[in-house]
Amino acid sequence: MAHIESNNLTEAYPMVGGDDAYSYANNSTYQRGVVDAAKELISEAIADKLDLKILGFDDTLKPFKIADLGCSVGPNTLLAVQNIIEAIELKFQRTTNLHQKPSALEFQVFLNDHSDNDFNTLFKSLPHARKYFAAGLPGSFHSRLFPRSSIHFVHTSYALHWLSKVPKEIVDPCSPAWNKGSIQCSESNIEVVRAYSTQYKNDMESFLNARAEELVPGGLMVLILAAVVPDGIPLSNSYVGVFNNILGSCFNDLAKMGVLSEEKVDSFNLPTYNATPKELEAIIRTNGNFTIEKMEKLSQPRRRITANEYASGIRAGIDGLIKKHFGDEFVDEIFNYFTTKVEENYSIIEEKIRNVSNLFISLKRFA
Amino acid sequence: MAHIESNNLTEAYPMVGGDDAYSYANNSTYQRGVVDAAKELISEAIADKLDLKILGFDDTLKPFKIADLGCSVGPNTLLAVQNIIEAIELKFQRTTNLHQKPSALEFQVFLNDHSDNDFNTLFKSLPHARKYFAAGLPGSFHSRLFPRSSIHFVHTSYALHWLSKVPKEIVDPCSPAWNKGSIQCSESNIEVVRAYSTQYKNDMESFLNARAEELVPGGLMVLILAAVVPDGIPLSNSYVGVFNNILGSCFNDLAKMGVLSEEKVDSFNLPTYNATPKELEAIIRTNGNFTIEKMEKLSQPRRRITANEYASGIRAGIDGLIKKHFGDEFVDEIFNYFTTKVEENYSIIEEKIRNVSNLFISLKRFA
Repeated sequence: MAHIESNNLTEAYPMVGGDDAYSYANNSTYQRGVVDAAKELISEAIADKLDLKILGFDDTLKPFKIADLGCSVGPNTLLAVQNIIEAIELKFQRTTNLHQKPSALEFQVFLNDHSDNDFNTLFKSLPHARKYFAAGLPGSFHSRLFPRSSIHFVHTSYALHWLSKVPKEIVDPCSPAWNKGSIQCSESNIEVVRAYSTQYKNDMESFLNARAEELVPGGLMVLILAAVVPDGIPLSNSYVGVFNNILGSCFNDLAKMGVLSEEKVDSFNLPTYNATPKELEAIIRTNGNFTIEKMEKLSQPRRRITANEYASGIRAGIDGLIKKHFGDEFVDEIFNYFTTKVEENYSIIEEKIRNVSNLFISLKRFA
Repeated sequence: MAHIESNNLTEAYPMVGGDDAYSYANNSTYQRGVVDAAKELISEAIADKLDLKILGFDDTLKPFKIADLGCSVGPNTLLAVQNIIEAIELKFQRTTNLHQKPSALEFQVFLNDHSDNDFNTLFKSLPHARKYFAAGLPGSFHSRLFPRSSIHFVHTSYALHWLSKVPKEIVDPCSPAWNKGSIQCSESNIEVVRAYSTQYKNDMESFLNARAEELVPGGLMVLILAAVVPDGIPLSNSYVGVFNNILGSCFNDLAKMGVLSEEKVDSFNLPTYNATPKELEAIIRTNGNFTIEKMEKLSQPRRRITANEYASGIRAGIDGLIKKHFGDEFVDEIFNYFTTKVEENYSIIEEKIRNVSNLFISLKRFA
């Protein structure tokens, strides 16, 4: 009989819970823009690529099951779910007779994130009137979350750049991959790049294998990723790379100022990796369980974001990580300093916005 | 298409969350005894009444889906789930060939409670190594929670005595059902009894109708209830009635002492009802969607419970309710006084333990 062992090796980096000033729920404006930008592409993927017949929906009444992986807390996951359901309803109306019976089609939606995620706030924010049965699903998406062949549509937005852990060589001063002086995948050291990209490949492989088992044959998966687009652009020149560099320079400054210990700064690395389209394509093809239906750069979120919103957004994402590494007492000082630096570098950031690198990928599970 | 409107009229009375001194997780010893006492009966129900063939499990690999409704937080729900899964595995081993393939059978478990329940703590307490995929399901069990025909086994323990609300006549000084001077279904006023029992009937009807849609035909449901057994025993003479009377007398004393306002005391009523086996049988038969496979009194939890454990257990259940009605500032005083009263009345309580009135009911959804 099945014995499910959750992966203890997987680290969790929860977004800030609750709904106060520093919460992810109130500081995910940028990610909201990504959801908006992806809406059209998701609708199109569902209209063109979702084969209801293969999924067994042509004349059978059964629940349509959707999962949002790495949902966090706040309006974005609920908005994405609403967009997906509207597109699926439209597809049903156009291609089956099921829509003629009101309430014929039922949706079950699984909102997944690590068990450290603030599900209490998420559950309280569920709309009272909604078109779906909602469930929360705690656990790492790098391992199995659902029974075999039990999900029809998987969505994940702005979550797959999180690694299951920082590669250990990166923090080992005896390793050639020691990443001293940088907090991200610094391209100046090929060993660092190798360690980060291997970790990413392994994590993505785990992710794809788990989803291949869980998705019904013919089921669709939409991945929205913070990537490095186009191929060949240096990470340090990308939008996300610029922010990471600013944050890294803050740590170095604060170490020089005697606020943070140098050892703490040296041993801090972001457990994130931004792949290129080429890398992603290779990983998906090697995995062999999915066809790539579409892979394209997402258009930029249109709304102008202030320096303060940028800084708060990043804080909402990594506040817990910083606290855990440097200690609670340093968090405010770090982020105040970071906010000032973001303001100072605002024109550079705005220039790099051309290198915003969000990738839309739709995959289909081999039927 | 389905439009799911969660019932705004349903009130939530969450158990105390977290895992500190006053939490339900640490103060549910009595309910633990109930889980232990029910274990045998659940195993027996599964062995004798679960028809895997009718459920379509004779040769098909599909997930077996279990729901625990009103799960709260703490070890009891997880223990109950483990007991259920072990019994189902045994049943599979004895009656199908599926057990011969390791990991052939997968379980998905839905842990349900109101969205005010502390799911964060519940999720963190999930065992790392477990035999099931777990999901949390926020919402009132008086309305629909799951898609049609999607659950094979429903379990609910010590939850169905909660009403969806206090019947409104009870708190209306102009109504003949005004329940002045009592906090429970006082038998001295037939109108109060009628109001409480009608509310219970309506709530149970909603519960059974929702489950009838959600359970696969042939699916089993186990209800473990705090009831009044045997028929004819006055509520005030039952175990639960004695505790309620002690709590009510505390309010009256504290009003006389000028601590609580008389108006607040008069307007407080427990949103709970303990039905008799006869009432339950009538409700289930009238509903008409289930056959009653077994209905019997549960044997008493064996472990001796101290006065302090009793009082803490009751506090963990109704702390939020008391806070909401009387205000945060009175809660400690109320429960300190209550604890003293429980100690004073310990011999009466122990005598009434003969009237412990937990009922085990197993139902089968008509196939």
